[in-house]
Amino acid sequence: MITSTANQQVRLLVQLNKKRKLRDERGVFVAEGLKMFREAPRERIEKVYFSESFFAQRQKELDLAGLDYEVMQDAVFKAASDTQTPQGVLCVVRRQPCTLDMFLKAAAPLILVLENLQDPGNLGTILRTAEGAGVTGVILSKGSVDLYNPKTIRSTMGSVYRVPALYVENLFETLETLRSRGVRSLAAHLKGERFYDQEDYREGTAFLIGNEANGLTEELSEAADTLIRIPMEGRLESLNAGVAASILMYEAYRQRRNG
Amino acid sequence: MITSTANQQVRLLVQLNKKRKLRDERGVFVAEGLKMFREAPRERIEKVYFSESFFAQRQKELDLAGLDYEVMQDAVFKAASDTQTPQGVLCVVRRQPCTLDMFLKAAAPLILVLENLQDPGNLGTILRTAEGAGVTGVILSKGSVDLYNPKTIRSTMGSVYRVPALYVENLFETLETLRSRGVRSLAAHLKGERFYDQEDYREGTAFLIGNEANGLTEELSEAADTLIRIPMEGRLESLNAGVAASILMYEAYRQRRNG
Repeated sequence: MITSTANQQVRLLVQLNKKRKLRDERGVFVAEGLKMFREAPRERIEKVYFSESFFAQRQKELDLAGLDYEVMQDAVFKAASDTQTPQGVLCVVRRQPCTLDMFLKAAAPLILVLENLQDPGNLGTILRTAEGAGVTGVILSKGSVDLYNPKTIRSTMGSVYRVPALYVENLFETLETLRSRGVRSLAAHLKGERFYDQEDYREGTAFLIGNEANGLTEELSEAADTLIRIPMEGRLESLNAGVAASILMYEAYRQRRNG
Repeated sequence: MITSTANQQVRLLVQLNKKRKLRDERGVFVAEGLKMFREAPRERIEKVYFSESFFAQRQKELDLAGLDYEVMQDAVFKAASDTQTPQGVLCVVRRQPCTLDMFLKAAAPLILVLENLQDPGNLGTILRTAEGAGVTGVILSKGSVDLYNPKTIRSTMGSVYRVPALYVENLFETLETLRSRGVRSLAAHLKGERFYDQEDYREGTAFLIGNEANGLTEELSEAADTLIRIPMEGRLESLNAGVAASILMYEAYRQRRNG
């Protein structure tokens, strides 16, 4: 049992929760809570940590076969945790290696391209909706918030394990590759001439969604194959980025389901 | 100029930001920031407050004719403000009186019914999307988070001024009234037999959305005319409440636009 916050593993967990660079270097993330532990792909779990009281109460209902785990005193667990009132279980999970080529192997890929998204909760919700809508994968510009920060991971509700995600240096190159492989890119933009529900998304489709405050950059909008517009009543200037992404993904899913 | 945080108006602002009961009693809310000030209906503004430095810089571009306003020292303004880095303008706005009957005067009302929604940001985003989708009005159970708390107001991006909202004691009575006036109520529910995009929303429609963690109560789901389901791929158990509401509202709007 780990009894001190000076323990090297505790220190590492704290750093992994704080530092994107360290998470990237190690290719891992920290997932907290019972639901996140249960849904984690077993073969990708590096290590599981329990608080002493959680372990005493719940040990019997947990399947720990083949897992490397460790118990911590409650106060030590709280120090390692990113939450105010920790449930008492967290795990270090290896990321799934992911390439654009993997996305493009799908029959008619449905891809989400996020440019400089900044809000962790927004990104988590988008990933969650992406799983629901059957999205093939999510591509993020380097300037976007880290998918693997603790707040985002929590708000994915487990989708972080199941929706492939890829950070890229250059979204323009990505759009080129998509185009060369028959995937049409559509940018949600106030200048779009056609409404989003007037386009056909049953073939390979990539939706471009911009930053919460500023939308897509003009450069990236111009690089897209088509500008589409989500109509709005009233005096609204824009929709929330996560809402816009959700409406587009579910319209594509609706078309694909209904043939 | 107000130079002390002990000033009665400053104290009132602090209390109005903190206390739902006081806001309700006075029938007002506090809106912060230049955008929120500019979009506020003039006739409903009780008073405007500026920080000294904001007022010195921006006074000329502001139209203050007929408005009751006051300037505060910057430190005093910061104390009255709900934000960490205030822009330097806030106003006290009277709420619009609102009844269910007003909603029902619309030709084919599109109504959102929220049961025990808890997250302020979620509610703000829902109101914002509701404006975009042309929703007639939003009805909230008494147990829902306060629409007029500062965080929600900010996240509405001005929609709080334009989307009528109504808190009710008893949602069951509300559903009865809606039914008697030809408005069909549809509850988003995992047990829904038909997908949300297989129903017709061009006539009077009310969507029921439940609490973030627990969804709709069984009682309210049973009181709805129809259960509908938003399909989900993968292993997802539910969508975010705000996302679910957005998908439904925009599907109704899509059908109404396309006739």
